[in-house]
Amino acid sequence: MPTYTLFHGTFIHLPRSPPPASSDPGSKHKHALSIHHGVLWVSVADGRIGGCQWGVKRAELERWVERRGWVWVQQDDHDGEKEEGGGDVVRVRVVCAREERNEFFFPGFVDTHIHAAQYPNTGLFGSSTLLDWLETYTFPLESSFGDSNTKTAHTAYTRVISRTLANGTTCAAYYATIHVPATNLLASLCLRRGQRAFVGRVCMDDPRFCPSYYRDASPEESVAATEATVKHVRGIDPEGRLVAPIVTPRFAPTCTTTAMAKLGELAASGGGGGEQPLRIQTHISENRDEVSLVRDLFPDSPTYAAVYDRYNLLTPRTILAHAVHLTPPERALIRARKSKISHCPASNSALGSGLCPVRTLLDDGITVGLGTDVSGGYSPSMLEAVRQACLVSRLVSYSAERQTGRESLSVEEALYLATRGGAECVDLADQIGGFDVGMCFDAQLIALGGVSPTTDGDGDGDLDDDDGSVGNVDIFGWESWEEKIHKWVWSGDDRNVKAVWVNGREVHRRKEVGSW
Amino acid sequence: MPTYTLFHGTFIHLPRSPPPASSDPGSKHKHALSIHHGVLWVSVADGRIGGCQWGVKRAELERWVERRGWVWVQQDDHDGEKEEGGGDVVRVRVVCAREERNEFFFPGFVDTHIHAAQYPNTGLFGSSTLLDWLETYTFPLESSFGDSNTKTAHTAYTRVISRTLANGTTCAAYYATIHVPATNLLASLCLRRGQRAFVGRVCMDDPRFCPSYYRDASPEESVAATEATVKHVRGIDPEGRLVAPIVTPRFAPTCTTTAMAKLGELAASGGGGGEQPLRIQTHISENRDEVSLVRDLFPDSPTYAAVYDRYNLLTPRTILAHAVHLTPPERALIRARKSKISHCPASNSALGSGLCPVRTLLDDGITVGLGTDVSGGYSPSMLEAVRQACLVSRLVSYSAERQTGRESLSVEEALYLATRGGAECVDLADQIGGFDVGMCFDAQLIALGGVSPTTDGDGDGDLDDDDGSVGNVDIFGWESWEEKIHKWVWSGDDRNVKAVWVNGREVHRRKEVGSW
Repeated sequence: MPTYTLFHGTFIHLPRSPPPASSDPGSKHKHALSIHHGVLWVSVADGRIGGCQWGVKRAELERWVERRGWVWVQQDDHDGEKEEGGGDVVRVRVVCAREERNEFFFPGFVDTHIHAAQYPNTGLFGSSTLLDWLETYTFPLESSFGDSNTKTAHTAYTRVISRTLANGTTCAAYYATIHVPATNLLASLCLRRGQRAFVGRVCMDDPRFCPSYYRDASPEESVAATEATVKHVRGIDPEGRLVAPIVTPRFAPTCTTTAMAKLGELAASGGGGGEQPLRIQTHISENRDEVSLVRDLFPDSPTYAAVYDRYNLLTPRTILAHAVHLTPPERALIRARKSKISHCPASNSALGSGLCPVRTLLDDGITVGLGTDVSGGYSPSMLEAVRQACLVSRLVSYSAERQTGRESLSVEEALYLATRGGAECVDLADQIGGFDVGMCFDAQLIALGGVSPTTDGDGDGDLDDDDGSVGNVDIFGWESWEEKIHKWVWSGDDRNVKAVWVNGREVHRRKEVGSW
Repeated sequence: MPTYTLFHGTFIHLPRSPPPASSDPGSKHKHALSIHHGVLWVSVADGRIGGCQWGVKRAELERWVERRGWVWVQQDDHDGEKEEGGGDVVRVRVVCAREERNEFFFPGFVDTHIHAAQYPNTGLFGSSTLLDWLETYTFPLESSFGDSNTKTAHTAYTRVISRTLANGTTCAAYYATIHVPATNLLASLCLRRGQRAFVGRVCMDDPRFCPSYYRDASPEESVAATEATVKHVRGIDPEGRLVAPIVTPRFAPTCTTTAMAKLGELAASGGGGGEQPLRIQTHISENRDEVSLVRDLFPDSPTYAAVYDRYNLLTPRTILAHAVHLTPPERALIRARKSKISHCPASNSALGSGLCPVRTLLDDGITVGLGTDVSGGYSPSMLEAVRQACLVSRLVSYSAERQTGRESLSVEEALYLATRGGAECVDLADQIGGFDVGMCFDAQLIALGGVSPTTDGDGDGDLDDDDGSVGNVDIFGWESWEEKIHKWVWSGDDRNVKAVWVNGREVHRRKEVGSW
């Protein structure tokens, strides 16, 4: 087995921004791409970035390897091969991004909010809004995951993992369903496929909102079932290298106060065996009818956020999805608790929930990541979430009603949210989201394709095999790397994701690629 | 040469809605998909739909052809082949949509607003808004189309035609640049590639707004250059079967009143040789700064729309792009003049222009089509325009500021706008946009792919060749046709466009398809 995988080519990421000083939470940080050309090596044993050296050209790579005393082996040599030479020989396999095809390495995306079980309903929501959408589309589908042989779950979960990996999602915070066997299956499948994942068994026990055919029998059931999945997930990945549990009260209207209190306690306790409190995920202030509903259901609570806070569900390891309609006191509370927000722009537009004022959240010093929110969101692609975050932000900035004149999210900032921001949301800011030495190599190799041929003759110009382009991105040759990244963001799709690695392990390769 | 092309399979379109009665312009029409299975035949000579018979199954097709006395020949038999039998034998070639692959025929899309010359800038707009975007990105690119050998134009125009055809756009209303040779080239390329197109030479002569390096020398130059392209386009397609000219004052701030008056006259005259007035396209009320600018530049005009009306540019054959910020009197004027509106949601969000209240326009009895507005819009795909039209509409309906409670655009209605609505905008409502007998066969064959395999075993579920899916659409087998269409709209892309026809001629076939 090789010691390192060497990656050579162009590496692009967003440098980690300093956390805002608490004295000046609105301090501005302008995000810019960090672009390097050279070599970066990853330990095969632990999947971490061992080091990098920029400036090494492709033509020099063989000699550079030789000079270090390393031995270049075939990419696809695997464990158990016959070892040549002594045990202290450092073997390296090599993956190159091709400059002439406008290929580059980019950190894998972190999807901070996705309902794995809803994947089969992707694109189906009619003209509904949140509460009727749950009743009409979502609860019936989710309830079907209780079949005894978990066949429905297996089919859906296999597919959603494939799709998200193919779109460059190396880490996802998943909601499953209320069913323990199906939830455990999701965690096992993520582990098998190599996707970093937080897997949450959905808790919903309040008969005032939950349908009779799809709810926990009692608060105790909510907690016991959660504990069962926590135990399973820890059992299959004891060191938590890839998968970990996450406590998942669906949202306030579905949970009794007893259940929320017990789930808060469970999380704080670490769930038995954990050194840290368990992660938590839930929804907040997605649409106005829901906010009203929470006000009606919890008349003693001053705000929606205060409901969660009362039961110790607002922690530094809590991800709150949506947060479209937060009040200033709620934002202050969330910042004080250091809880994180998952912005899901595609879903918010699709369900007509509203325009989330992300700039305001960031200025308040709140950590924000992006989520696809499948299937309220219509796409499992985080690149689509990046696009929609930009679009929604521009509409907020320039809308007649707000006219804030404040800067909308740049493409670079949206990419930051999709990588570093997401890493912070899942409390892995030191581990993933960039190419810093020591971090896990969770990455995607993006191929934009060659330069579109200049034509001036009688060729019919039909798109064919050798036209150079990959997917819908057209590069004409005059673009800077920054412009190429913008073209990728606005025109790219899964066709541009040539391969994906998590913890240094290749977990997806487009079928067209063949071998390295 | 065969007499007919027979198309067999599932045909889906939107029935043409009756024009709103002038006494009740707000009368509601609920759009629903019309879905038929059977055979439809198209005259090879004139590209029109000769007839259809629903209910004929694939297994019966050979006998059905035989019973009519027709002779089934190979699909790819072309002109000049040896004729067998007498001259009165009716030969037919056959194209089948495969049910098991969820294939269906759908009318081609009509893109009512696209700047062909801006295509190379697709995805590049930073955080700009309309007026600075024009200066920073657009005018410099467009001005480069004046090179003497039209090489820049050839490269860009070849590519944009390829991309739009590949995305199912069978008809486009193009803006070119101010350059006559490049504009003429665009028309010639559309004709050669078989795309139905309206090609407009852009008029902009007002030094108050236009940059010195990119403007017409005088109003007379605006008109003379337009006449030159009108003559060229009519010369290459005398019957106007595919390409036709369109008078294109860029927008009020770029045009002197003299130029607008003369262009209005030119359009009314039919441009020499035309039986009808020439078509017109321009922009209106895209963003608030632009509306203010028009107010400043034309202090005598009560409204933006009134500027155009004064110079006879608001006609039943006029397409007004954007119309985000129209006032009620402007809407009344536009309705009275029977002018059409091209709604460009992707562009309006990307440039932060605002949320166009399409429902209000429709309720006022105004005809609306959709446009990609490349490259203010970031995608040449009309399916993306359909998606964005739905999203923007939901945000309008449910936004805190409006809370109209009025129905947002349904998927079906957005598809109507992209086909029938567009056909009305380009004054071809009787010719294209649906599968009515006698219409031109402008169509796309959409393939959603087979049913995703049910898995319950140890397969790793990676997406591979035989997984059944096409692109990002996942069909699980329980979906109705309506649900499949929704999945197509929300997850589909050019990979699902298997082939495209205009006037019955195949103008695009995905390279994976091979022969029929």
